Amino acid sequence: MNRQELISTIKKKQSFLCVGLDSDLTKIPQHLLKEKDPIFAFNKAIIDATHDLAVAYKPNLAFYECLGTSGWESLMKTIEYMPKDVFTIADAKRGDIGNTSKYYAKTFFELMNFDSITVAPYMGRDSVGPFLEFENKWVILLALTSNEGALDFQFTESDGTALFEKVISKSSEWGTPNNLMYVIGATRGEMLKRVRKAAPYHFFLIPGIGAQGGSLNDVIQYAMNEDVGVLVNSSRSIIYADSSVEFATHARSEALKIQKEMSEALLSKNLL
Amino acid sequence: MNRQELISTIKKKQSFLCVGLDSDLTKIPQHLLKEKDPIFAFNKAIIDATHDLAVAYKPNLAFYECLGTSGWESLMKTIEYMPKDVFTIADAKRGDIGNTSKYYAKTFFELMNFDSITVAPYMGRDSVGPFLEFENKWVILLALTSNEGALDFQFTESDGTALFEKVISKSSEWGTPNNLMYVIGATRGEMLKRVRKAAPYHFFLIPGIGAQGGSLNDVIQYAMNEDVGVLVNSSRSIIYADSSVEFATHARSEALKIQKEMSEALLSKNLL
Repeated sequence: MNRQELISTIKKKQSFLCVGLDSDLTKIPQHLLKEKDPIFAFNKAIIDATHDLAVAYKPNLAFYECLGTSGWESLMKTIEYMPKDVFTIADAKRGDIGNTSKYYAKTFFELMNFDSITVAPYMGRDSVGPFLEFENKWVILLALTSNEGALDFQFTESDGTALFEKVISKSSEWGTPNNLMYVIGATRGEMLKRVRKAAPYHFFLIPGIGAQGGSLNDVIQYAMNEDVGVLVNSSRSIIYADSSVEFATHARSEALKIQKEMSEALLSKNLL
Repeated sequence: MNRQELISTIKKKQSFLCVGLDSDLTKIPQHLLKEKDPIFAFNKAIIDATHDLAVAYKPNLAFYECLGTSGWESLMKTIEYMPKDVFTIADAKRGDIGNTSKYYAKTFFELMNFDSITVAPYMGRDSVGPFLEFENKWVILLALTSNEGALDFQFTESDGTALFEKVISKSSEWGTPNNLMYVIGATRGEMLKRVRKAAPYHFFLIPGIGAQGGSLNDVIQYAMNEDVGVLVNSSRSIIYADSSVEFATHARSEALKIQKEMSEALLSKNLL
């Protein structure tokens, strides 16, 4: 999915919601455990119940890998099941020397046909470059993450520039707003402002709304740009809203609440 | 495998060689393609031919993931096949928020029983911590990598300290020389000296020997410590030494050349 299609989908659905599929055997409704593939059954129900409200889905690889080959099978079935009008994100946080990153790129873009993958920046240009060589595929580079550990290295200042700002400025030479997004933690509004200044045109994938405590209002106020420019992720507060046989209906209600706020924000910013 | 067992194994085999199992269907001897599981057949032959000369094996996940579930099966068979007297490294370069890293840790330490995993430091303490909670398991943290992109961020100076040095100093508060090693690129001897100063006691996993152009002499001169303190990785120059039916014999010859140099180094440093 290219940038224009992504923006059109956002406007059509009046939503910039990304649903995180952190699907965990110990947390999904227990009646699903009798299914042949409980994780896929869960994902399918969540997708069916929310795909008109969500523009993106983001399975986090950790939750699939921990089940071994059956987890990979669930993931591959999930990605095949995705409707055409959603943007898919492999939350894999990969990154290795160029020769090796190329294989990761093939895995997620060719074997599994994801639209995008999250990538860690520490190893620099040749670790990110191979992912940027695929047409209509995206890198979502970790810049400012939403966890406590973000404080350990990402704010390290050099010549008045924090490391996360250097990651943004350097990497904007490698990719463009058409194939490169940034992961930007949403837990502090002031920071969103600072990051938007560093990258006026790129899309941001913003986790940390909901269970992690970030504010959707701050995102709307400080991080949106003229092309919307944000995807806001919510995982646990939607997918684990309820654990009964009605879980999908409850997941839909939670997604709908967020989508309504998003729709209002898009209207108020004259973006529809 | 704990630190003392690792050091004993090094002394017993007179080697600190790690063999990188970057096993690729397009590069392994083509006669193996008729095997039911060509990647496992290749790894098995390489392990059989080199395990008395190598103290560690390091499959890089990228090469297995790109084959989907069959790649994961080959990897799991490989790790099950490992002799008891080798140290196993999942070269996976993972790292995510705490809640998620925990699942990666379970995957590689419980499901697959690796001794260690390579981890990316960008997300800080809570992304690394969950891997350090497993007894007799190791984190091998990216500090100074051997690729060109290392120059993009790892040398960023703040108060006279480069980022890779900050990674070492911060992370030494999270783990100890008994459960934490560092990935240190071996392409520059001067750098090895600087890093050894920053981490006198930790083991280093040193890639970049062979195909990537690093020097084993520099490693011996600048990076070894009183407990040996180094594992030196070679991948392509050993495993792809030859592509005929005699590939394993040639792999052994290459490994033997390196092991002999290592044995001499250990002797000259009075470490045997």
